[in-house]
Amino acid sequence: MRPEVVVLRYGHRLVRDARVTTHCCLVARAFGAKEIIINSEDKGLLQRIETVNKKWGGKFKIIFEPDWRKSFKKLKNNGFTIVHLTMYGEPINKLEEKIRKEKKIGIIIGSQKVEPAVYEESDYNISIGSQPHSEIAALAVFLDRLFNGKELEKKFPNAKLDATKVRKGKK
Amino acid sequence: MRPEVVVLRYGHRLVRDARVTTHCCLVARAFGAKEIIINSEDKGLLQRIETVNKKWGGKFKIIFEPDWRKSFKKLKNNGFTIVHLTMYGEPINKLEEKIRKEKKIGIIIGSQKVEPAVYEESDYNISIGSQPHSEIAALAVFLDRLFNGKELEKKFPNAKLDATKVRKGKK
Repeated sequence: MRPEVVVLRYGHRLVRDARVTTHCCLVARAFGAKEIIINSEDKGLLQRIETVNKKWGGKFKIIFEPDWRKSFKKLKNNGFTIVHLTMYGEPINKLEEKIRKEKKIGIIIGSQKVEPAVYEESDYNISIGSQPHSEIAALAVFLDRLFNGKELEKKFPNAKLDATKVRKGKK
Repeated sequence: MRPEVVVLRYGHRLVRDARVTTHCCLVARAFGAKEIIINSEDKGLLQRIETVNKKWGGKFKIIFEPDWRKSFKKLKNNGFTIVHLTMYGEPINKLEEKIRKEKKIGIIIGSQKVEPAVYEESDYNISIGSQPHSEIAALAVFLDRLFNGKELEKKFPNAKLDATKVRKGKK
């Protein structure tokens, strides 16, 4: 059974985080999440992702909710297991088999500092390596591992563009 | 044999790309590349990465070279196989076994539009999924696949900080 995945982006700051959060949204969409929850309402971001959906298909959603705890609790109440991605977590190599058995996964990715409650209240703190790098990279590798690389082959419904066709056209 | 990896970041723009390129550098470092080549000299970037090296160890290098062709040719002359990561490339799932046999790999990641010569002159154009997402994510997943997830467990020499020790301290 393919797990249902929602991403919770902690601490998005308008303007400053625009590009990094856009990458987070695109990665969540491309690697198989159904939606991303963001704390600051950001119309530019919404438009960019809607444009991508229109061209490239699918129904990936952005939800704005200022209070991360509210989203957190809602996910918990709906049966989601919460995975916080952090370099201070347990290694993904150790936990990936276990996590693959979950049916619903809520993934928290931080931007800057994450308050201690996120560590304490998440079901798992998981590290994608214990070096500092990027929440975008952590999310991508986690989802790639979770879906065993298969999500990359998925077709998005209602796409106007299709990179595999462009590729064939180019040859 | 562990392949030797160099990343070539195509089209870094000062200020505008600062954060995204920083993520690219950190991912290259954390996931096992030995250096990254960047086209625009950027002192802030250099400082950020040197600070990370000092704290977290290792000898990851940033090299500035304005002309990507020069870097490209140098890599080719030194026996590197060039892999351009692009959503219009051949699927990673098809090529990863083959790529793992290479001894030296130069990875090109773009920012905005990449000129046709990059597609034409690279040995491989490889897609990490055929949806638009992020060069940071593409680089991370490619390196994770290349090293079979093992690079994430590597210890960096001469580190002042160690996330696994902090983790143990926290418990």
